[in-house]
Amino acid sequence: MHQKEDGWVRTLEISPPDLQNNTADADRLIDTLKSRLDIRRLDLTIDLELLRQLPFLMREWGYRVRCILLKDRAHWVLTGLLPVDDKRSPAGVAIDLGTSRVVLRLVDLTSGNVLAEDAFDNPQIEIGPDILTRIHYADDHKGLERLQQLICDGINQHLAQLCRSCSRVPTDIYLITVAGNTTMTHLLLGLSPSRMIREPYIPVVNRPGLIPSAELGLQASPHARVFVFPNIGSYFGGDLIAGILYAGVHRSDNTALLVDVGTNAEVVLGNKQWLIACAGAAGPALESSVTRMGMMAGPGVIDRVRFERTIGEFDLHTIADRPPCGICGSGLIDLAAELFLSGMIDMRGRFRPQTCSDRLIDVGGIPNLVIVPADLSATGKPLTISQVDLDSLIRSKAAMYTILETITATVGIGLKDIATFFVAGTFGTFIQPASAIGIGMLPDLPLQTYKVLGNTSLGGAALLLTSNRLMEEIDQIRNRITYLELNINQDFMNRFSAARFLPHTDRARFPSVRPLASG
Amino acid sequence: MHQKEDGWVRTLEISPPDLQNNTADADRLIDTLKSRLDIRRLDLTIDLELLRQLPFLMREWGYRVRCILLKDRAHWVLTGLLPVDDKRSPAGVAIDLGTSRVVLRLVDLTSGNVLAEDAFDNPQIEIGPDILTRIHYADDHKGLERLQQLICDGINQHLAQLCRSCSRVPTDIYLITVAGNTTMTHLLLGLSPSRMIREPYIPVVNRPGLIPSAELGLQASPHARVFVFPNIGSYFGGDLIAGILYAGVHRSDNTALLVDVGTNAEVVLGNKQWLIACAGAAGPALESSVTRMGMMAGPGVIDRVRFERTIGEFDLHTIADRPPCGICGSGLIDLAAELFLSGMIDMRGRFRPQTCSDRLIDVGGIPNLVIVPADLSATGKPLTISQVDLDSLIRSKAAMYTILETITATVGIGLKDIATFFVAGTFGTFIQPASAIGIGMLPDLPLQTYKVLGNTSLGGAALLLTSNRLMEEIDQIRNRITYLELNINQDFMNRFSAARFLPHTDRARFPSVRPLASG
Repeated sequence: MHQKEDGWVRTLEISPPDLQNNTADADRLIDTLKSRLDIRRLDLTIDLELLRQLPFLMREWGYRVRCILLKDRAHWVLTGLLPVDDKRSPAGVAIDLGTSRVVLRLVDLTSGNVLAEDAFDNPQIEIGPDILTRIHYADDHKGLERLQQLICDGINQHLAQLCRSCSRVPTDIYLITVAGNTTMTHLLLGLSPSRMIREPYIPVVNRPGLIPSAELGLQASPHARVFVFPNIGSYFGGDLIAGILYAGVHRSDNTALLVDVGTNAEVVLGNKQWLIACAGAAGPALESSVTRMGMMAGPGVIDRVRFERTIGEFDLHTIADRPPCGICGSGLIDLAAELFLSGMIDMRGRFRPQTCSDRLIDVGGIPNLVIVPADLSATGKPLTISQVDLDSLIRSKAAMYTILETITATVGIGLKDIATFFVAGTFGTFIQPASAIGIGMLPDLPLQTYKVLGNTSLGGAALLLTSNRLMEEIDQIRNRITYLELNINQDFMNRFSAARFLPHTDRARFPSVRPLASG
Repeated sequence: MHQKEDGWVRTLEISPPDLQNNTADADRLIDTLKSRLDIRRLDLTIDLELLRQLPFLMREWGYRVRCILLKDRAHWVLTGLLPVDDKRSPAGVAIDLGTSRVVLRLVDLTSGNVLAEDAFDNPQIEIGPDILTRIHYADDHKGLERLQQLICDGINQHLAQLCRSCSRVPTDIYLITVAGNTTMTHLLLGLSPSRMIREPYIPVVNRPGLIPSAELGLQASPHARVFVFPNIGSYFGGDLIAGILYAGVHRSDNTALLVDVGTNAEVVLGNKQWLIACAGAAGPALESSVTRMGMMAGPGVIDRVRFERTIGEFDLHTIADRPPCGICGSGLIDLAAELFLSGMIDMRGRFRPQTCSDRLIDVGGIPNLVIVPADLSATGKPLTISQVDLDSLIRSKAAMYTILETITATVGIGLKDIATFFVAGTFGTFIQPASAIGIGMLPDLPLQTYKVLGNTSLGGAALLLTSNRLMEEIDQIRNRITYLELNINQDFMNRFSAARFLPHTDRARFPSVRPLASG
């Protein structure tokens, strides 16, 4: 099989020793690697246990060995030795370590092929669904240990299942790449996140580097290493660095923008010359405020909405085509856009009773619009959206638009100058840019400008399993990013106020959005 | 206390975090170190357990910390954190890991002061006194484990005693430097030495680098590292690299020679431009063949001999001034020189019955010279030297001289061109150059040319505890040495034959040696 020169797996033909070449076994391996890589000085760590086996394995295999060689900066680590004719190829696993959801992707380290994928709810949810509760729980040493144990156990359990699903075993795994927000990666490493929520918001470490998986209690090959994507600070995690790597913003000739909508809206703007990033609380309305209706994407959750104006009915799509039980972020954006375009809400987001007619009901003094009547809902109760939900969504979309406007203005360009607009995040997997434009959440750019990438955090972590050169790119990304602290100043507030209309006070910015003129 | 910029201990004043500098704790420590060292890129490993404590310790100590920072090539390791006002200074231990004897020296890592020293017999002697027996014993996996356990237990036990002797504890130790021959260091690391005695004589590793002491089972601070001096091959160990470092041959303007006499005679010739080394079996006669008389330096062992010609009596010095029980190498060389200079042996090393008179006795047909009569000896038996002992000594001294002649001839210089002649080895501690010249073992150079250094292996290992810059020098020494394989060809044999006379066939080479012309 052809081996990429930047892959983690290499077949080395080591010169057998003779009286003219009686360098030690380990050093002949290093010399072979040196000439292969054409570097003069090679700093290679071989764990003692592996070093002890080395002379026996080299001879047993006739001096032809497959090495799993990790690299971090100028420092190499030998994590595994295999015979060249072994059927079982070494594997790596990429982990998107989310606050709510953890996604694992098992990858063949030699070919880069995806072997299997699995996701599970972050077991730390039993301590608290939100980050803040977990951070407070971790203030106590025992609490931190428990959170670390929970996530490690969860990963071990699902990793074992994942391996079984494709006839592998965890000891086939030599590299684990983890992308997550700064709190989640701290909890995985057992590092106290306490100072990240208190001024001046300090993580324990920005760049954890390669860590023996055994030290974390993760089950893998005995010498496997865990690479945790570096963060930039408490509010800018390795998940976004992985996202930039995956989207390739840092290699782009034209200016690109990447937005990852989760609990926060994290935005990166840049190209191969510069990168600027900021984060803001734009997402709560999208991901957790509207809890009443259920937010997590799952069976029965409404993820796409159309309003058939001709028959005056909603055309709803639910995940797995099950009876509707709630609505997720992308469904909510679709819904709001359709309500606005069909004239059921006005440009301030208020229900228009004359258009909504009998769909509009009063619940405790608050107007609610029935989306799914009780008899069609999975819960036996009508699914509704209230004026409060809408107001919250509009605040969120206004915040998002304001952040986008602010970050572009900061570097002296307009939103129209964005050549590629990457939408990321689990939420971003389902978002329809046209709907987001319809409510003025995203700018009115040609639809082909938008690239919906899905889980870029997982994508970046998995990409790293295919090339060691990306280690350097990750550092370059991290070093090149200017982090923009969003100051909630008069400019910001003015922009925010103007963005609280549908799609915007300045209608000229959204020429493609044409709501029905209704009475 | 003034801290050397190349020391292992540094007091760092880390900037406290604020909103303008909210880099992570670990990264602020690294940044401080970077600006202190004035290097742009710093690859620093902080073991996970230490990283977990870092934020608490930094704050508890007001951002002023004493760091124990090891360095190997471009790679740094943080092994310890201490408050600046802690009375207890971090320590290091240097180990001369000999086949027979192990010497420990405890050093204050901050000041470089020696705290205590101890030595003990290598407990592997219970398996076999010589290297070969131990290597065969290690052919079996369990045997290797046992040998590793024996030496580690021995070191742990004596290290604990050593610490107690100066009110320290082993957890004060952050760096352990070990110099030993290639077999001894392999056994310490649990690496199989089996291939080192079989063509083409391959060690497992030449440069083991920094190894966590916990992985070896050595008791020290939890994050301490062990540095094993690199070897050049099976027959040229880290003990000699340490010796070169200590003697400073590699920094010498003029050409210097270092000879370490143990079981082998190991010779290094060179200066700051080049280094050439060889090893040969010159020593057995000195260190183990003459076992009958006892060789190990210890109480009662004769280490210096003079023959008072005026009264015709031996003037013997014994270690600790105890009744004589044997003779060690330096005593034997003195004795042979005195016997030759006083005319009791001829230039072929044969006893002259007319000069020896009634001191000469016959034991089973072999002439023996009584050195100590039975009534003055500690054993109650006369201490004698036989013709066989003398023949063996002469072979050894001839081999030594031939090696010295060969190595200098190889680089096209004469023995007279040696500006400094370092004599090393436990044996070398007591050797009197004048006596060694007297029998033609060492060349007839001005006495001030000779520098008797004692245990240079321990000296080099201890020196490394005082400066991290020496890590680089060690690699330079290793990379610069040309290893000369001694070919036992006609030239060598001719030289050897000529050197089997006292002091030499060519008397003109030893003008200072003037034996009594006796009948």
